[in-house]
Amino acid sequence: MIKVILLGYGNVGFHLYNAFSKATDIDVVQVYYHRFQSIKDLQSKVRVTDELKDLADADVYIIAVSDDNVPSLSNKIPESNKLVVHSSGSIPMHNLSKKHRRGVFYPLQTFSKDQEVNFTEIPFCLEVDDKNDFEILKKLAIAIGSKSYKVTTKQRLSLHLSAVFVNNFTNHLYRVGHELCEANNVPFNVLKPLIKETASKIEKLTPYEAQTGPARRDDQLTIKKQLSLLENDEHKEIYRLMTKSIQDLYGRKKL
Amino acid sequence: MIKVILLGYGNVGFHLYNAFSKATDIDVVQVYYHRFQSIKDLQSKVRVTDELKDLADADVYIIAVSDDNVPSLSNKIPESNKLVVHSSGSIPMHNLSKKHRRGVFYPLQTFSKDQEVNFTEIPFCLEVDDKNDFEILKKLAIAIGSKSYKVTTKQRLSLHLSAVFVNNFTNHLYRVGHELCEANNVPFNVLKPLIKETASKIEKLTPYEAQTGPARRDDQLTIKKQLSLLENDEHKEIYRLMTKSIQDLYGRKKL
Repeated sequence: MIKVILLGYGNVGFHLYNAFSKATDIDVVQVYYHRFQSIKDLQSKVRVTDELKDLADADVYIIAVSDDNVPSLSNKIPESNKLVVHSSGSIPMHNLSKKHRRGVFYPLQTFSKDQEVNFTEIPFCLEVDDKNDFEILKKLAIAIGSKSYKVTTKQRLSLHLSAVFVNNFTNHLYRVGHELCEANNVPFNVLKPLIKETASKIEKLTPYEAQTGPARRDDQLTIKKQLSLLENDEHKEIYRLMTKSIQDLYGRKKL
Repeated sequence: MIKVILLGYGNVGFHLYNAFSKATDIDVVQVYYHRFQSIKDLQSKVRVTDELKDLADADVYIIAVSDDNVPSLSNKIPESNKLVVHSSGSIPMHNLSKKHRRGVFYPLQTFSKDQEVNFTEIPFCLEVDDKNDFEILKKLAIAIGSKSYKVTTKQRLSLHLSAVFVNNFTNHLYRVGHELCEANNVPFNVLKPLIKETASKIEKLTPYEAQTGPARRDDQLTIKKQLSLLENDEHKEIYRLMTKSIQDLYGRKKL
């Protein structure tokens, strides 16, 4: 049984708590959050506190707060030779106070409170200062059905950066599609099968192989016509840049 | 039984042929393609020809060739008061020769020959000149298990344009992620659950609601750090533009 204390109850903390509390091999000893109002309702299920001096004893302390607040929070956790990890994709492990055994337990996924999360589909990127601590983080991932990968800080930062491209920027392209549909009175639902297929296609093909469309074909006529259909200047700019980037990758037809 | 002749055997023609030939309510009478070599192997299953003068009789003639070649091919089809449709997202129905009854049978999906296609997941956008012809195209979609939508030319062009954003450009963002993974010796597989979840999330949330990440949070520090991690200038440019576009949508924090 791994005894865990969660520090933070935002999107990540919320979903980690739900997964941990269902896992038979994990005991969530306590949840800490500075906004007591947000964790008040948890009281019937688990010890909660908004005071760091009241932190209980555990095997792992998982910090799941916004990046800016990780260093100071880790500093305020009383020294006790415990394993203290953060769950962020973008900050170094060494931003944690060196008075602790340190590590990173970063779930590579997008979390929203309203959206259920299936942890069997989430890879955790693990880092530890002391290699003896690796096992405990690995067991934690296994206990909630997740895969885990041992990574370096540089690898984790590059994965987080990749995630911004394949998740945040992709979602923004969906938003552009949504706007175009609304402007033309077409239900956005018509695009959903294509969105799904685009994501599925790369299960078997590389993104390089999976590419199709006017930019890939260097179909100048369609590119010109589509640019003239776009009314929003920022959408035009995105269209131009992405088209150019695809053409730079695949080459242009020889004239 | 709807008698169909397919003209063209590229990605779209290939997959349409496979779906049609399995459908009990459709009889593929003939496949035409100017490159006989490509359709030679079909001869055991269906009549094939590379001569337009040998076209047989059918209820619908579906042109599935590259956009540029649609007008001239439709012109060369002998006049016979038959329904001639194209399958393109981006060209007007009236690019078809007016000697025919005209229509559009546009599957909104990305096709690659190596990737199987599930037609129950493909919406067809339908247009007809003569509204009596709508039913036959609708039946054709139903016969292969597909949904269909009656659209105007303007709506179809906007859907095709949206498809370029949510499919081609999205796939290019996957490619950027793939490159970043390769450069850092991380398996691209680590990103696949996130890619899947990004596509699934919009089943329940709008893209506007689903957005997360540094640009959404206006997290200047992370944005700056991530830009400095990017070595490829074009990737930097994509990062900047998409970040700006997300920030323009959600607003910046007040300083």
